[in-house]
Amino acid sequence: MTVHFHKAAIVGVGLIGSSLARVLRARGMADEITGAARSEKTRGAAVALGVVDRAFENPADAVADADIVFVCTPVGAIAQTVADFMPALKSGVIVTDVGSVKAEIVAQTAPVVRPDVRFVPAHPVAGTEKSGPENGFVELFEGRWCILTPTEKTDASAVETVRAVWEAAGMKVEEMSPERHDRVMALMSHLPHLIAYTIVGTADDMEKDTGADVIKYAAGGFRDFTRIAGSDPVMWRDIFLNNTDAVLDCLQRFCEDLTVLQKAIRRRDGRTLQDWFTRTRRIRREVIDARQDQPENEKLLLKDKKK
Amino acid sequence: MTVHFHKAAIVGVGLIGSSLARVLRARGMADEITGAARSEKTRGAAVALGVVDRAFENPADAVADADIVFVCTPVGAIAQTVADFMPALKSGVIVTDVGSVKAEIVAQTAPVVRPDVRFVPAHPVAGTEKSGPENGFVELFEGRWCILTPTEKTDASAVETVRAVWEAAGMKVEEMSPERHDRVMALMSHLPHLIAYTIVGTADDMEKDTGADVIKYAAGGFRDFTRIAGSDPVMWRDIFLNNTDAVLDCLQRFCEDLTVLQKAIRRRDGRTLQDWFTRTRRIRREVIDARQDQPENEKLLLKDKKK
Repeated sequence: MTVHFHKAAIVGVGLIGSSLARVLRARGMADEITGAARSEKTRGAAVALGVVDRAFENPADAVADADIVFVCTPVGAIAQTVADFMPALKSGVIVTDVGSVKAEIVAQTAPVVRPDVRFVPAHPVAGTEKSGPENGFVELFEGRWCILTPTEKTDASAVETVRAVWEAAGMKVEEMSPERHDRVMALMSHLPHLIAYTIVGTADDMEKDTGADVIKYAAGGFRDFTRIAGSDPVMWRDIFLNNTDAVLDCLQRFCEDLTVLQKAIRRRDGRTLQDWFTRTRRIRREVIDARQDQPENEKLLLKDKKK
Repeated sequence: MTVHFHKAAIVGVGLIGSSLARVLRARGMADEITGAARSEKTRGAAVALGVVDRAFENPADAVADADIVFVCTPVGAIAQTVADFMPALKSGVIVTDVGSVKAEIVAQTAPVVRPDVRFVPAHPVAGTEKSGPENGFVELFEGRWCILTPTEKTDASAVETVRAVWEAAGMKVEEMSPERHDRVMALMSHLPHLIAYTIVGTADDMEKDTGADVIKYAAGGFRDFTRIAGSDPVMWRDIFLNNTDAVLDCLQRFCEDLTVLQKAIRRRDGRTLQDWFTRTRRIRREVIDARQDQPENEKLLLKDKKK
């Protein structure tokens, strides 16, 4: 299925929004692309980069007459943004989001979406630790998962249209319940980010406590964590505030396992350690085999870093 | 300072040993390079790849007549290996290691090293999650830190020779006490690996508990962790068994910080989360500025993965 829009609006032209705009442009999927961003700098960059034709401060101005609206703001702003621009939408329009949390978004948007507006909750699972329209790129989504979380009230044809957009971006699209999405993402994305944020802060404190350089010796493990812990603070604050229960449940399980390994280290129980590490190495191979490790994207990022 | 050896022996021709052999070869630093490995497959690969001229099962055969011996076995095998080949060494030889733990190695080797053998404890902080001679490459060490931990008994000219080798490999060489090295590495490398190992196991358990796919949706955070958790199980078992106290101390600090963030999530305290995440983003920038993030190496790894 291919889709074409007379006008597509992207509310929030950051990393994800601007990458999506680049996809729509590259595939010739929209006659016009408008964008909305609160900061004048972001609007200027989005227009200068050619990712949107026109950029507005007020989302209502960007979404007027649009056939489809992509809400690409941080999770905490999605419901209010949708409520604010709702009166400006034309009838029959599709509104979809890219939020990393779904149950809260579904619950918060339900009371504000007009009956003649078709809302499709979606989460393209892609990103880098960078923010802003200048860091977007058309290949960002290639080979990644996009999870749609329609409810029984969601219009089926709108779901198919949104699916077609993300497939055009190169994503593998699946549907699941908002609750299942949130549990999967708590473990696969939110908890790893929380842990990376934690340890980088721990290292910073230790450096201050001891008055000696530590972080300059960042080795393989820690360096990877700093990259994750460099992700957008507001976006991630909102994720933890909106996926609280699933994150806390995963965190509890993680802490139990960490305690098992802590005890093995204290007791110098090499067998428990080696068995655990052997199991995780096998899982690593499974992830590679499942092609979830994607050199192409990372190469682009590295190329970008060299500039 | 440039150095040249008539014969260099590398005991343990895995990722690090074979990469070092490639450096010695590429820089023309040794007339002959011998290797030792327990497994016949590894010996065959090391010779077939041309990284060593001859490979032996018994380290004593490899080190005979060598001017310098690099012990590149897992940490837990270093002291015993050194003790075993000690009688075969010629007088005045330099023996150095690449172990990721230093205080234990210094303590364990002290009683077994002959007075006419010059032992230099060293740790080139480099590596990938892969093992084996086929995964080594000459650029592995470029731009990374190598930490030497000489004691008052260590021969100064031997330290300078070892320094020259690692500088020839492209490393930035620093000296510090074994104890300080172990504290720095506990935080920068050992704890991140422990955490990555833990969470990958947690995910595996959750998948089994719920009977539903989770790991196939591996997103940015988790995918990075699986790479770290794919590192060699025996090498990492030995690290935790030999740097116990420093790792447990860092782990305690990490758990305290994790509890602070856990409480902030439970109480939906967005300010604490955002402040923490903003601080870690700044640290990320400092790490990049310190050039500890090294695209060149990672590019090579990615290239390798594509094969």
